[in-house]
Amino acid sequence: MKNYKITISYDGTKYNGWQRQGNTKNTLQEKFENVLSKMCGKQIEIFASGRTDAGVHALGQVANFKCETDKNPDEIMVYLNAYLPEDVAVLDIEEVQDMFHSRLCAKRKTYRYTIACTKKHVFARKFVYRTDEVLSVDAMRQAANKLRGTHDFIGFSAVKKIKKSTVRTIYDIDIRQNDGLIEIDIIGSGFLHHMVRIIAGTLFDIGCGRMTASVIDEVLENGVRSEAGTMLPACGLMLLEVEYK
Amino acid sequence: MKNYKITISYDGTKYNGWQRQGNTKNTLQEKFENVLSKMCGKQIEIFASGRTDAGVHALGQVANFKCETDKNPDEIMVYLNAYLPEDVAVLDIEEVQDMFHSRLCAKRKTYRYTIACTKKHVFARKFVYRTDEVLSVDAMRQAANKLRGTHDFIGFSAVKKIKKSTVRTIYDIDIRQNDGLIEIDIIGSGFLHHMVRIIAGTLFDIGCGRMTASVIDEVLENGVRSEAGTMLPACGLMLLEVEYK
Repeated sequence: MKNYKITISYDGTKYNGWQRQGNTKNTLQEKFENVLSKMCGKQIEIFASGRTDAGVHALGQVANFKCETDKNPDEIMVYLNAYLPEDVAVLDIEEVQDMFHSRLCAKRKTYRYTIACTKKHVFARKFVYRTDEVLSVDAMRQAANKLRGTHDFIGFSAVKKIKKSTVRTIYDIDIRQNDGLIEIDIIGSGFLHHMVRIIAGTLFDIGCGRMTASVIDEVLENGVRSEAGTMLPACGLMLLEVEYK
Repeated sequence: MKNYKITISYDGTKYNGWQRQGNTKNTLQEKFENVLSKMCGKQIEIFASGRTDAGVHALGQVANFKCETDKNPDEIMVYLNAYLPEDVAVLDIEEVQDMFHSRLCAKRKTYRYTIACTKKHVFARKFVYRTDEVLSVDAMRQAANKLRGTHDFIGFSAVKKIKKSTVRTIYDIDIRQNDGLIEIDIIGSGFLHHMVRIIAGTLFDIGCGRMTASVIDEVLENGVRSEAGTMLPACGLMLLEVEYK
């Protein structure tokens, strides 16, 4: 059995997220497994670096799968792109060591949350969160600085029962404003459920003036979700990149 | 009555083109006139620099309308953007001289036709023409050179009865290839019905090797539509800019 690392882009608008689970229809994992299983003539499983939620997009999601095939990686890519829907694309495939696992081996992930303060970007409208609020990007940047480093992010997540550690490291948060779009890029060791959307929402509330930056310190300290800001919708979130050693 | 020049962007995917006509529903002109008429409390007409066909997009269409209103141009823009659908945006409004007419005063228009030779650009997929053909961009560029200048373009159009002149000037054609996308930018004095899509299709056929560049000379000479290349679909076409004196 060979192990393949695959880099994927998708418009998540109409999918119920990455992960196949129970009776949930129309997941990205299911789409990939159907095509791979057809290609190999047997059931194939594929594992992503992380589940993306319903409606979340990816520019560079990474996954891996094991299979036996006579095709070389380029031929697998052509096959997958021919049979996958038009809102999903394989950007790259390479054969990797048997030990490689897209989730367990991931070192850093970059997510982007995009807020549109204008209606003018009609061609990007499905991949942003549109608002008429007037945001202070300076206030958002100052608050974002407080999130850098290693902290318990449970208060910025939808995690309820603590089975595993909720400590994560944020290496960098970069906020850019250009032509009416505010892009929040967050690079971290990994992210808890809903963490990026709740952080983006808290920065949004701070940018609007509904909260002050001190809420960041408080929620990192007390871990109380209800004291953090709103959660922004899935449509503005994009998994940009997953990095490995 | 004041005269307003308005710059507009739209995702044309679900519209039956710009022009309101007969029983055709869901035109962009109708969408604008409905909102403007509501704003002014009387029927308002709006005139675009040119009709875009069903499914064609615009980054910078220009139109004009005359009305009486207490609102200043910025307030009109806010009003229109609030009531127009999300796939249509007003980018700019300015008051202009009474003589200004968006179509009659237009000096140059730039259209872009985008061909995607890869599936990877999932977020742009509705605004390109996707092909698996292998295209020679050099051959396309050499053929495009022959189109520059002032010619009778009837053979590259859907015009049947010649009521008006079919002579137009193409100032420039620029073809760029980047990351699997081929962008054909055509700047001209004006364009006949379907002219950009038939030119793009003829260059496409030449790029594929199904035709040679000499077809350009022949069709400019004999004006026979059936000797030119295929017409590419509306989804890949975008009106980029309209220039005035």
